[in-house]
Amino acid sequence: MEPLFELAIRLPGTGSRDLLREVHRQLRDAILDGRLQPGARLPATRALAGRLGVSRNTMLAAYDLLLSEGYLLARPGAGTYVADTLPRSRRGRTSKKGAPARRDPRLVPLNVPGADLAPTLQPPRARDDFRVGLPDTGAFPFDIWRRLSDRALRRIAREPADYAQPQGQAALREAIARHVSFTRAVGCTADDIVVTAGAQQAFGLLARILVVPGRTVVAVEQLFYPSLREAMTAAGAKVVTVPTDVEGLCVERLPPEARVICVTPSHQFPTGVAMSPQRRAALLAFARARNAVVIEDDYDSEFRFAGRPLDALQTLDRAESVCYVGTFSKSLFPALRLGFVVAPPWARAALVRARELADWHGPVLGQEALAAFIAEGHLARHIRKMRKVYGARRAALLEALARHCAGRLEVIPSDAGLHLSAWLRTDSRDHAAVERAAAAGITLPPLSRFAFDPNAPGVPNGLAFGYGLIDESQIDGAIRRLAALL
Amino acid sequence: MEPLFELAIRLPGTGSRDLLREVHRQLRDAILDGRLQPGARLPATRALAGRLGVSRNTMLAAYDLLLSEGYLLARPGAGTYVADTLPRSRRGRTSKKGAPARRDPRLVPLNVPGADLAPTLQPPRARDDFRVGLPDTGAFPFDIWRRLSDRALRRIAREPADYAQPQGQAALREAIARHVSFTRAVGCTADDIVVTAGAQQAFGLLARILVVPGRTVVAVEQLFYPSLREAMTAAGAKVVTVPTDVEGLCVERLPPEARVICVTPSHQFPTGVAMSPQRRAALLAFARARNAVVIEDDYDSEFRFAGRPLDALQTLDRAESVCYVGTFSKSLFPALRLGFVVAPPWARAALVRARELADWHGPVLGQEALAAFIAEGHLARHIRKMRKVYGARRAALLEALARHCAGRLEVIPSDAGLHLSAWLRTDSRDHAAVERAAAAGITLPPLSRFAFDPNAPGVPNGLAFGYGLIDESQIDGAIRRLAALL
Repeated sequence: MEPLFELAIRLPGTGSRDLLREVHRQLRDAILDGRLQPGARLPATRALAGRLGVSRNTMLAAYDLLLSEGYLLARPGAGTYVADTLPRSRRGRTSKKGAPARRDPRLVPLNVPGADLAPTLQPPRARDDFRVGLPDTGAFPFDIWRRLSDRALRRIAREPADYAQPQGQAALREAIARHVSFTRAVGCTADDIVVTAGAQQAFGLLARILVVPGRTVVAVEQLFYPSLREAMTAAGAKVVTVPTDVEGLCVERLPPEARVICVTPSHQFPTGVAMSPQRRAALLAFARARNAVVIEDDYDSEFRFAGRPLDALQTLDRAESVCYVGTFSKSLFPALRLGFVVAPPWARAALVRARELADWHGPVLGQEALAAFIAEGHLARHIRKMRKVYGARRAALLEALARHCAGRLEVIPSDAGLHLSAWLRTDSRDHAAVERAAAAGITLPPLSRFAFDPNAPGVPNGLAFGYGLIDESQIDGAIRRLAALL
Repeated sequence: MEPLFELAIRLPGTGSRDLLREVHRQLRDAILDGRLQPGARLPATRALAGRLGVSRNTMLAAYDLLLSEGYLLARPGAGTYVADTLPRSRRGRTSKKGAPARRDPRLVPLNVPGADLAPTLQPPRARDDFRVGLPDTGAFPFDIWRRLSDRALRRIAREPADYAQPQGQAALREAIARHVSFTRAVGCTADDIVVTAGAQQAFGLLARILVVPGRTVVAVEQLFYPSLREAMTAAGAKVVTVPTDVEGLCVERLPPEARVICVTPSHQFPTGVAMSPQRRAALLAFARARNAVVIEDDYDSEFRFAGRPLDALQTLDRAESVCYVGTFSKSLFPALRLGFVVAPPWARAALVRARELADWHGPVLGQEALAAFIAEGHLARHIRKMRKVYGARRAALLEALARHCAGRLEVIPSDAGLHLSAWLRTDSRDHAAVERAAAAGITLPPLSRFAFDPNAPGVPNGLAFGYGLIDESQIDGAIRRLAALL
């Protein structure tokens, strides 16, 4: 343990009394500035004296002064520490807690409501947690991951340092191409894959290469994943919402000037509806006719519980209109931050260049570990295992909703994914119901939260139930308690 | 090994002859499409038959047909594989190799020269590799990193899945704050740190929050780090270059309308000059007077070989004008992709929100491992060790340049960093010298490469010598050979 190795102190080349004064002053300033933080251990006087080129006696005298002034504390046998009783306001530049009330004139607006002030708050964990979009990692084979990660690290250790390919590690692109070819019939090779830091970066990079600020019209579904819309508006897009029904996006309602259309055809977010084959064909025809681009977000379709999967839009696409976005945040875990785009040839180089501009390339270790995890079949095995776990939870959820909420909640049919949704068929608004549920220890999102304007008249009214975090055994009890609140 | 776990095949619910035809056709299409790639192993017939709900005899018949047609190969005792003799053009959508010649009309220009077409090429490794900006990882304690990484993974495994803070893991921000407080006298606490995916993302996010496209004037040094300028131009900045001399940036030459000023005061990139205290004060006065922002890129100043460090601009700043950018790509390794901004209070929330929009947050594992690596003193120890290694190389380089290149190369004084530079005092242009060197197995960059227009008259003419990758024992021989080429 040697956290303090080079305290930036500059000394005049003069007599020893000046040196003592300087050492004392600079150490005290460092403590008051917050550079030397409360609890920090100071170097031994001998070591620090040697490094600063002063006598040890000078150092001892400086420490003694600071000790007597209460800036330092000596713990016998354990060294000298910065006292932690200094007033908070002296400890650095963060005395103003919380976000500033107004945007500083030096800042450019981010074009996202509330974006300039504070990061999104995430709801706290509740006893019964039905948050959507989060997988269960309890059964994840972390031991295998650790082994593959160690192996990748040994390989990195053997190579001279270098920057890597912005497109992503070749082994990972190869593994992803095989994976999506089999699971989703997405026709692609490793060359077509651009690795991203989760789906969020994929949306941002696609916005970067497809949106002319202030001009490009981007269509999203009536209810949508908020971060997708934010990525588009932040890039300057004119975002319009398009109604969806039991067949998914109402293609005939697309504004003719839409140049980018964002859809979740496998498992509409958040309603769970699958887009019908007719609508898929119509959407591709629209894109082909108008030279528009479709962003297909296929975020959790690995988890399918009944029926046969419909072809991905990418699979059906014959005009290179579709950019297919996938993520490992749902099939593995979000802390990994890995996703990808299957990009048509015309978009690929620009997308790679956009990634290079954004952050050069992703961390190599995680990419290499994931490549091996996929190639050795662990991903497939984990998905298969989790499909059973989620399937059982989903069945329990459906049963509980039928038993306790019939007439009040109408489940929206859906065959896949990590959550299901239901329309609220009572007089209450979904956000009010969600607030009552939160007070009772149940977390779940209202569907209106995923609308452009949650307070607009006629906004969809319902609830989403994620089953990634909640144990099967909790579900019936939680839904029974929820039913009493509706 | 079970790479094929769910081939997306949909079957009609009809008689067995139709089923055979469908299974055969869909498998063949998958092979021709490239979804089933050459060399891929197919599932056992029994397993696939079970999953598709057809009889095993039907599956066997389908495989037999494909075997007889040459689409599949059976390896006795090892299973059935996709043949790898299919013509390349049938294997996916990447038949057109190379970048397209023109930008597709659907793409928005990236505002960076050549950006829309192909990613930056990196020079190949040479026998004598003087590339700049790359550290030696040969002495990096990868075993310690592996242990810390394993420990972090065990902690992640115990927690339910969740997204993390866009600002960065608290433990890492705490560790970085202490680290830069001591090594660079940068006054900050964990609250002031925003973790980024390397310095590149830091530049991009700062550009995002500071640059009004088409309007904001950003000043960079006469010679500069190309990715920094690209991040600025890609954000729509009007980039202007400002001369530098032996004291660093000529502050009096700054255009009054400059709103963002990007500097490398500790070790100017690429010349290595340190900005004088007078210029530092003048720059901060300029920023304060005009409400401009200074981006201080302190990329490799941990490696200091003589003299005392000058205070960071951030340390001197009393007007919250400075955004300090640090990176671990040089002190650790670039594959890690971790850097940070010490942001003034007025910029912090916007910066965090910009990161959230860009990719939500960085991978948790690498952040947690780095936090422990710093907190346990390993970073300090590694830097101290490497400072000796680099110091010896630097001394050897200076000696070799004096011995072999006197009169032809004039070394630019500098006390820190991973490279040094020299002006070329012959009639030849630096890029021509670099080409001759490359032919002789020596890689090094010409200084003119770091100019806005490398071909402009009067562009600086010199060479940079990185000593991160080259062994001390190679240096004298390489410089002797280089001298013969100058």
